[in-house]
Amino acid sequence: MKKIIVFLVLFISFSAFSQVEKVEPPFWWKDMQQSSLQIMLYGKDIAKYDVSVSDNIVIEGITKTENPNYIFLNVDLTGVHTSNFKINFSNKGKVAFSQNYELKSRRANSALRKGFDSSDVMYLIMPDRFANGNSENDSNSTLQEKADRSIAGGRHGGDIQGIIDHLDYIEDLGATALWSTPLLEDNDKTYSYHTYAQSDVYKIDPRYGSNEDYKRLAAEMHKKDMKLIMDYVTNHWGAEHWMIKDLPTYDWIHQFPGYANSNYRMTTQYDTNKSDIDWKYCVDGWFVSSMPDLNQSNPLVLKYLTQNAIWWIEYADLDGFRVDTYSYNDKDGISKWTKAIMDEYPNFNIVGEVWMHDQAQISYWQKDSPIGAIQSYNSYLPSVMDFTLHDAITAMFNEEDASWDRGMIKAYENFVNDFLYADIDNILVFAGNHDTNRINEIYDGDVNKYKLATTLVATTRGIPQLYYGDEIGMRGNKDKFGDGAIRQDFPGGWNNDEQSAFTEEGRTDFQNEYHSFTKKILNYRKENEVLHKGKLLQYLPEDNIYVYFRRNESSTVMVILNNNPEEKDLELTRFSQGIGSFKAAKNIITGSEINLDGKLKLEAKSPLILELN
Amino acid sequence: MKKIIVFLVLFISFSAFSQVEKVEPPFWWKDMQQSSLQIMLYGKDIAKYDVSVSDNIVIEGITKTENPNYIFLNVDLTGVHTSNFKINFSNKGKVAFSQNYELKSRRANSALRKGFDSSDVMYLIMPDRFANGNSENDSNSTLQEKADRSIAGGRHGGDIQGIIDHLDYIEDLGATALWSTPLLEDNDKTYSYHTYAQSDVYKIDPRYGSNEDYKRLAAEMHKKDMKLIMDYVTNHWGAEHWMIKDLPTYDWIHQFPGYANSNYRMTTQYDTNKSDIDWKYCVDGWFVSSMPDLNQSNPLVLKYLTQNAIWWIEYADLDGFRVDTYSYNDKDGISKWTKAIMDEYPNFNIVGEVWMHDQAQISYWQKDSPIGAIQSYNSYLPSVMDFTLHDAITAMFNEEDASWDRGMIKAYENFVNDFLYADIDNILVFAGNHDTNRINEIYDGDVNKYKLATTLVATTRGIPQLYYGDEIGMRGNKDKFGDGAIRQDFPGGWNNDEQSAFTEEGRTDFQNEYHSFTKKILNYRKENEVLHKGKLLQYLPEDNIYVYFRRNESSTVMVILNNNPEEKDLELTRFSQGIGSFKAAKNIITGSEINLDGKLKLEAKSPLILELN
Repeated sequence: MKKIIVFLVLFISFSAFSQVEKVEPPFWWKDMQQSSLQIMLYGKDIAKYDVSVSDNIVIEGITKTENPNYIFLNVDLTGVHTSNFKINFSNKGKVAFSQNYELKSRRANSALRKGFDSSDVMYLIMPDRFANGNSENDSNSTLQEKADRSIAGGRHGGDIQGIIDHLDYIEDLGATALWSTPLLEDNDKTYSYHTYAQSDVYKIDPRYGSNEDYKRLAAEMHKKDMKLIMDYVTNHWGAEHWMIKDLPTYDWIHQFPGYANSNYRMTTQYDTNKSDIDWKYCVDGWFVSSMPDLNQSNPLVLKYLTQNAIWWIEYADLDGFRVDTYSYNDKDGISKWTKAIMDEYPNFNIVGEVWMHDQAQISYWQKDSPIGAIQSYNSYLPSVMDFTLHDAITAMFNEEDASWDRGMIKAYENFVNDFLYADIDNILVFAGNHDTNRINEIYDGDVNKYKLATTLVATTRGIPQLYYGDEIGMRGNKDKFGDGAIRQDFPGGWNNDEQSAFTEEGRTDFQNEYHSFTKKILNYRKENEVLHKGKLLQYLPEDNIYVYFRRNESSTVMVILNNNPEEKDLELTRFSQGIGSFKAAKNIITGSEINLDGKLKLEAKSPLILELN
Repeated sequence: MKKIIVFLVLFISFSAFSQVEKVEPPFWWKDMQQSSLQIMLYGKDIAKYDVSVSDNIVIEGITKTENPNYIFLNVDLTGVHTSNFKINFSNKGKVAFSQNYELKSRRANSALRKGFDSSDVMYLIMPDRFANGNSENDSNSTLQEKADRSIAGGRHGGDIQGIIDHLDYIEDLGATALWSTPLLEDNDKTYSYHTYAQSDVYKIDPRYGSNEDYKRLAAEMHKKDMKLIMDYVTNHWGAEHWMIKDLPTYDWIHQFPGYANSNYRMTTQYDTNKSDIDWKYCVDGWFVSSMPDLNQSNPLVLKYLTQNAIWWIEYADLDGFRVDTYSYNDKDGISKWTKAIMDEYPNFNIVGEVWMHDQAQISYWQKDSPIGAIQSYNSYLPSVMDFTLHDAITAMFNEEDASWDRGMIKAYENFVNDFLYADIDNILVFAGNHDTNRINEIYDGDVNKYKLATTLVATTRGIPQLYYGDEIGMRGNKDKFGDGAIRQDFPGGWNNDEQSAFTEEGRTDFQNEYHSFTKKILNYRKENEVLHKGKLLQYLPEDNIYVYFRRNESSTVMVILNNNPEEKDLELTRFSQGIGSFKAAKNIITGSEINLDGKLKLEAKSPLILELN
C-alpha cells in the first residue's frame, strides 16, 4: 500500500508539474556552419528526467544546473537531414513525455547574405514613435504597460505595420537600410517603449506586431532592395524576463551580491593601470536597475545569446545588427559571440555601440584593430560608430569664431586619426541618434547648419546614419526634458495627427526645406559609388572653410563647407591635388555647371557639393 | 708672356682666396661604431681643388655641390689608429695646402654611457634667465644682441658659470638631471636669449661661456652623479647661421621658393587623408621666419646633423638630448638621425618634443610604437613627452565641480591610454615648461594646487620634469605678456638682485612653502625605486579624490589627491587591491604614522603620500 501511494504521488507530481513549458531556440535549421546546437528546455522540475533524442542524433552533452527547471541539451547536427526529431524525457528508463524539435531548411545562399555597408544610408527609428499602423495592438492584455500618448515616456502605439506603411517614404528619402531600436518583448511597467529591457528574446512585442510581421517587414524591404538591421542587446535583459525571474544559474547574471550599477567607465576594458574593482563595476555592474547584467563569460549564457542572434538572422532574414552597449560586455564573451555570428555569415555586418571620445579607444573594438592587437584582442566586430565625429558635428557648426581648435578644424582633426582604424569604410557616421540631443535642437533650428552637417555625414567616408525626424527639422532637448523630448512622434504617423510630414503637401515649408535637401543629397549618394568607397582627401580648413574630396578611378566629388555667416571667395589653386585635370563641375544640389579656374563664390553658411567633370 | 700672366692670375687667385676657413666636425674620435666620417671643408672656391688624405685612410667619396665653397669629404675610419691625418688640397697634381685633422681617443665606456631615465628628476632652465655667474661675458663684440635686463625678451646675462654655481641648489632640491634650453651660438639681433635660432652649432654662445665651460658643467654634474641633457635642434637653424648665408646646396633648407611658414599641423605626418600641400607646409614650412627649415631628407644635411649631435655627446660627455620640435622634421630623416645616435650609444636617452593632445599621436613618435607600426614607422626615439597629462594638470586642479569629465577624472583618463605607448616609463611628465603658461599662474598662486600637481608629477609613472622657478611659486602669463613673462630671472641669480631664492634664508615664506614641499617629495622620490619603475595602479576618482599606487615587489606607495576645497573622509575598503596586507603607513611629508583600517581623514585640497608598511 505504501509503495502504491509513493508511486501515485510520484506519478501525480510528474504528470501534473513536469512538462516542457519553453524550448529555446524554438526550432533550428539544418546545414548551419556551427553544427553544435544547445537546446534549452524549461519546465517545472524538468531536470529530474533523463533526456534522449531520436533519429540517431548525437548528444554532445546535457547540462543540468542548480535550478531543476532547466536542462541544456547539446546535440551535434553534423550531417543531420531529418526535419524533426524527438526529445524524450524519461524516468527510470521509461519515456514520460516527449518534445518534438523542428529543423528547417535554410533559404538559398542564406549564409552568404550581404550585410549593410558604405553603399547604404541607415535610417534610425524608434518604432513606438514612428507610425501606428495598427491601433488594435497598442496595448496587450498580457503586458503591463498600456498605451498613453500623453506621457512623454509612455507607449505611443507605433508598430511594425507603421514602418511597413512608410517604407516608400524612407526609400524616397534616399535611405537604403533601416535600424529600428528593439522590437522584442519588453514587459516593464514603464518606459517599455524604448524596449531595451527585454522580457522574451524570441518574441516580437505584441504591441509592435508578431514575429511574422517582423519577417514581413524584412521581406517588404528586400523587395525594395533595402536592408533591415536589428538592434540586438547582449549586455542585459529586462528584470521582467521570464528567465531572470527563475534564473538557470546564480551566475546567469552578475550579482555582487546585491545591486551594483555600472560606473560606465569603458576605459577599464583596456587600461593596464586599472584596479580590478573599477573594471568589475564597469562590466558587471548593471546599466540601470531594471536591466540585469548578463554574464557572457558563462558558456551557457553565451551560447544562448549567440543562437538567439543567429535565430533572428535566419528566421527574419536580417541584413545586420546594431549591438547595444557593445563595450560594456565581457570582452572575451562578446568577441566569441561576434565571431560565431560572422563565422556563420561571413558577409554579414554588425555595428557596435562604442560610445567613447577617443579614436584609439573606438578603434579598439573593431575587427582586426591595430589598437586591440596591442593587447592581443580581436572583437571580430566589423563596424564601429564614429562618436568623435559626432562630438565634432555637435560643436563646430555653432563655432563661427574659428581658431586653432574651433570651427571646421574639428572635422579635419577627426579624420587625421582614420589610420588608427582597421576598416575606415565600415564606420557609422551620424549627427545624432536616439540617445543624443536632437541635432536641430543643438543648431537652434538653423537649417543651414543642418545642411552643413548632413552634407558632411552623407559625403565623408563611412556609413551615414540619419535619425528619424532630423530630416524634417524635429527638435528636442534631452538635458532639459528627458529622453522623451528626443523621441517624439513622427508627425502623421497616427491617424488623428493634425499634420503629416510623410508627404510634401503635408509638410510645412520649414519641414520641406530640411526634407528636400536631405532627399537630394541622399539620393545622389545612393547612385554614386565614389561616395561609398572613394578615397578621402582633405585640406586643412582655412578661414573656417573645410574642403575635401572623395575620389576613385572614374569620379571625383569635391565638397566645400563654408562655416562662415557670410559669403566667401575660395581660391582654387591650393586644391590642385584634388581637382586634378578637371576643368568644370556640376553643383549636385542646384544642377548648375561651374567653371573651376579661379575662384568659387561660396554662399554664407552653406555646403557646396561638386561633381567634377 | 700670356701664359705667364694666366699662371700668375691663377696663382694669385688660389693663394689669396683658397684656404680652409671651416672644418666640421672640427675633430673626431677613433673607434666609433659608425666608421664613416663626413668632413665638411669650407673655404672660398675650395671645390676647385682635388682632395686626398694621408695615412692610407680610405676615401669613400668626395661630394662637391653647386656652391664652390664646400667640399664634403667622406672617409672610412675602420681600423684607423692614427691621432692625426692630413687632408691635402691639390691643383693639377700639386698639393697647394693641407689641413690637419685630429682623431681623439674616446673616454672609457663612452659608448655605454647611461642616459637619463625614470630614476631621474629633470630640472629645466633657460640659461639666460637662471644665474649670471660671469658678468664679463654678458655681451660679446662678435655677436649682435647685447645684454639688457630691462627688456623682457632681451638677453639678461645668465650663463654656464651661473649654472655651475648653483648645482648645489639643484641637487639639494632633489633633481638629478638638468635640461638647459640651447646654449649654442645664436646671433639673432633680438630674442637670441631663447637660443633656438642657432648660428654656429659647433660653438657655445660666448655670452654663455666656452665649449670648455660646457664640458666643465657636465664634469661638475657627473661629480654629483647628476646628468646633463642638451637641447638639440634638428628642425632649423637661425637665419644668421654662417652656412645659411652661403648655402652648400639650394636644398640644404626648404625653399618653396620664397618664404612659407609652417602650418604647425603635425597630424599631417600620419593622416592618410591629408593633402600633400598641407603636409609640405607643416614639415617644410619654417617654424618662424628667423629659422630656416633644415632639409633632413638631404643626406648631406642629415649626416651633418647626426655627426654634430654625436660630437657634442662625445665632446661634452652628455647624458641625454631633448630634441626641439621633433615632430616637425622630415619623418624618415629624423628617424635615421635618432637611430644613428642610439646605435652609437645604446643606453643613451633622447626625449622629443611632440606637442600633441592625443595619446595615440604622441605614442606614434616613440621607439617601437604600436601606433607608428601601423604605418611601418619607427622613430627610434626612446622618450616622448606626456603633453596630454600636461593638459589635464593645467585644468583639473582648478575644477572643484567634478563631473563625468571634470576634475580628477582628467588625470585618470590620461593614464587609461598608457597601453598605447611602447615604453610608458620613458615618458616625460611635467606641469609646465618654457613654452607654457607658468603653472602657478594657472593656479593663481594657490600653493595647495601646486602641491597636488607636483605630487602627481613626482609620483606617477615616467620621468618628472620641473621648470625652474615653479618650486618657488614663480608666475607668468604668456598670453597676456608674451614669452618673457614665463621666462623671468630666477631671484638671486644676479649679484645685484634684491633677494635670493637660492637659499632658505633668502626665500620668502611664500617661496619656502613651495620649495620645502618640492624638496621633500623630490628627495623622497630619489631614494625610492618604487616611484621610478613601480607598476601604476589607479582607481576611478570618486568625489573628486584620485587614489593611485606605485608598487614593486618590496614597496608600495599610495597617493591620494583630494581636489576638494574641504576636508574629506576616505573609506579604504575599496582600495584593498592596492593596500594588500599592509596595515599601516608613513606620511612621507610629515613623517607621521597612520593606521590603515577604516577611514582616512584627508585635508582640504591636499595630497597625501603614504609609504605602506
